[in-house]
Amino acid sequence: MRLSVVVDCVDPASLVPFWAAALGYRPADTVAGYAALVPKEGDTGPVLLLQGVPEPKTGKNRVHLDVHPEDAAAHVAALERLGGRRIGAWVEEELESAGIRWQVMADPEGNELCVVHHVR
Amino acid sequence: MRLSVVVDCVDPASLVPFWAAALGYRPADTVAGYAALVPKEGDTGPVLLLQGVPEPKTGKNRVHLDVHPEDAAAHVAALERLGGRRIGAWVEEELESAGIRWQVMADPEGNELCVVHHVR
Repeated sequence: MRLSVVVDCVDPASLVPFWAAALGYRPADTVAGYAALVPKEGDTGPVLLLQGVPEPKTGKNRVHLDVHPEDAAAHVAALERLGGRRIGAWVEEELESAGIRWQVMADPEGNELCVVHHVR
Repeated sequence: MRLSVVVDCVDPASLVPFWAAALGYRPADTVAGYAALVPKEGDTGPVLLLQGVPEPKTGKNRVHLDVHPEDAAAHVAALERLGGRRIGAWVEEELESAGIRWQVMADPEGNELCVVHHVR
């Protein structure tokens, strides 16, 4: 079934560069009040729809995206250059046989996401 | 890039039947404190990770999923039987050339999602 992920925000257009880099997506045509991002040619994934809403963010988002890039440290640095910020330090956890580390980040409006590094 | 969608909740295991039906997914192996759902054989899509957190939901989620089933009315009814509830009435909007209708719903813990019907 086709899925979309919808992120409420105050200024959809301003978040496009950040989210395109975060997900490895490209901007798509859309309608007023929204900005849509889709996977690049040859990739699959849900549409990301940035949806303009009047109310500002309050509290921690209860739904967020994890991204699993090849190079997590470089990804975090790239997102910081696009207005993202780190929330706390890298978190390390032993899950099953493999280690996993992640950095919680916030987009320029404060929406959380996690950049995940798999220790093989 | 691989993506996961993480939904904070109080009782991950109890939400598995609802979210499996909502997304057309199947349960996957996971670790304590989490419940993971993945696309069925032959489908693609992000992992859905239900993550146990101590705090209850407050306010509207600022990130949510839209699902686009073949039969939206039947999908809403099926999710109601799994403990979901409708939030308000169907919303209708003219977007570009095509009409679109959606029903906002809440999972058994109140996490919002939208069931979208495309009027062709």
